Amino acid sequence: MRATVMYQAGDVRVQDVPDARIREPTDALVRVTRACVCGSDLWPYRTMEAEPDGRRMGHEFIGVVEDIGPEVASIARGDVVVAPFVFSDGTCEFCTEGLPTSCRHGGFWGVGDVDGGQGEAVRVPLADGTLVALPVGEDDALMPSLLTLSDVFATGHHAAESARVREGATVAVVGDGAVGLCGVLAAHRLGAEQIIILGRHRARTDIAQDFGATDVVAERGGEAVERVHELTGGAGVHSVLECVGLEEAFGTALRIARPGGAVGRVGVPQYDALPGAQSSFLRNVTVSGGIAPARAYIRELLPDVLEGRLEPGRVFDRTVGLEGVPDGYRAMEDREAIKVLIQP
Amino acid sequence: MRATVMYQAGDVRVQDVPDARIREPTDALVRVTRACVCGSDLWPYRTMEAEPDGRRMGHEFIGVVEDIGPEVASIARGDVVVAPFVFSDGTCEFCTEGLPTSCRHGGFWGVGDVDGGQGEAVRVPLADGTLVALPVGEDDALMPSLLTLSDVFATGHHAAESARVREGATVAVVGDGAVGLCGVLAAHRLGAEQIIILGRHRARTDIAQDFGATDVVAERGGEAVERVHELTGGAGVHSVLECVGLEEAFGTALRIARPGGAVGRVGVPQYDALPGAQSSFLRNVTVSGGIAPARAYIRELLPDVLEGRLEPGRVFDRTVGLEGVPDGYRAMEDREAIKVLIQP
Repeated sequence: MRATVMYQAGDVRVQDVPDARIREPTDALVRVTRACVCGSDLWPYRTMEAEPDGRRMGHEFIGVVEDIGPEVASIARGDVVVAPFVFSDGTCEFCTEGLPTSCRHGGFWGVGDVDGGQGEAVRVPLADGTLVALPVGEDDALMPSLLTLSDVFATGHHAAESARVREGATVAVVGDGAVGLCGVLAAHRLGAEQIIILGRHRARTDIAQDFGATDVVAERGGEAVERVHELTGGAGVHSVLECVGLEEAFGTALRIARPGGAVGRVGVPQYDALPGAQSSFLRNVTVSGGIAPARAYIRELLPDVLEGRLEPGRVFDRTVGLEGVPDGYRAMEDREAIKVLIQP
Repeated sequence: MRATVMYQAGDVRVQDVPDARIREPTDALVRVTRACVCGSDLWPYRTMEAEPDGRRMGHEFIGVVEDIGPEVASIARGDVVVAPFVFSDGTCEFCTEGLPTSCRHGGFWGVGDVDGGQGEAVRVPLADGTLVALPVGEDDALMPSLLTLSDVFATGHHAAESARVREGATVAVVGDGAVGLCGVLAAHRLGAEQIIILGRHRARTDIAQDFGATDVVAERGGEAVERVHELTGGAGVHSVLECVGLEEAFGTALRIARPGGAVGRVGVPQYDALPGAQSSFLRNVTVSGGIAPARAYIRELLPDVLEGRLEPGRVFDRTVGLEGVPDGYRAMEDREAIKVLIQP
């Protein structure tokens, strides 16, 4: 079958790989019908050192179940399913507590003998704990929005939950990438009163405003901090969604948080230590978040997507076939596209 | 009047200073009947550079109201009152939200023209927002425990709240100083099932066990981490109370937190950046806490102290008069005493 492999920074190829197949009795074999490129895929795209065998890529996908192992009980052949970006057993203590990303038996797509999502098919380990069946046909018009449940909308939601967004809260979202935009949507969904998006790309901040942003701050660094303080009577916001992952973005997030507020981090951190240990202490600012337990959020977010109340799929502004994936990476890296949908 | 002044590391003097007196209509004049030395006073005691005018010391006290300004409404002459370690107006947005340490008009004792608590008397700004009247006589046997509401027990409670201690939680407390011991007591009060104290001073860990600690870990660094993991089935604890303030202690706290858990920091940070930005992200560990909003907790904690259910005052193991304060600092620094009570 065909699948995406990254060999080093800038070198993404679609090539023949061994066919996905059932190996464990708890596996499902899924033919991928939609996948996408993640902002986090761009970190190795910028920095990965050469690996002779490359890395299988992609961790967001929807597909049709072609086969199941004998122990799979809740998923059947023919089901249209969405996979979260981490697989998990659904039964361990962490899964039970709503943190499937720390599952005792789970793992990441594309690692070891597990397929990546940017390919024709995927062997899904722990299918019962991992997959969620969708009550739609495989080419339903809702596909782009349903696909965001796999990662990007779930991650925006995790940022909002981690930043403790409540009814009436003041919120700032640092970053106008697809996760930041989904963070705006999630904060709006949770009842935030004021949502300030920090971003400088008009096409993106326009979507943010459609998603519920009340203010746009195009400034950066100290000027952005000043502007957010102006917009909030000098206090800063209750909740900051940090959707970038750079140290500078985290520093900005901390400085615009109101005393007693919280920063929800979902940008994969490209830094080792969190700056501002004393400032956050003096102002009692909480730092929370991490990799989003998407699987735990899908059931909560699904109805709003199925019933068309929310349209997170608007973050996809380009679609490619499988052979077009390398150009999809390039388009996202060059900021030609916010997020690229893959239709194998 | 006599009061404590620190001139540089190791140089604490009790000397004559101008008498405390009412200056603003919202002030109260309080004759100090109990005060104490704080673990945080030891940071300048170790590192303060010489200051010709010195710094007035002390931020925890109980006393009797001798006079009030014309605008003070809730406190009367003769009241026995406890002061939290930050004064606050009680009416601004942050006070209303339960964060009086970020009060728009508040401040710290011993700064500018505000007296410190380690002296004969204190001018208390914003008396209505700051002081809490106690229904006891000035020499009541409960005085040591009541005094802990000023800071140390409130701070232990803040660590527990910030670390999200819940009924049935597994908890670790890093540090066996007075705050750590009060953290144990607070975690026990909130219903923690397992409370592991990390400390190596037997006299202190004995008190911790009386306060509700179920396990003592005397190891440090990597060995302590291993031991806590052994004690918790390999998972780590839901809640870690970081009651030291050193980078190493924070690092330990982070490593013993369970995925999805929280670290409540109340040790005044002697570091600029929080290590482990990636580890906390991967495991969704929340970092919370800061300077404790003691004033907001006093009403919640007071009944348990007044009715004798909790005895946080056991952290005081030495009492000095005002002239004995310098030796009290020395005794705490030399770990001869856990915490020193001052009876002027």
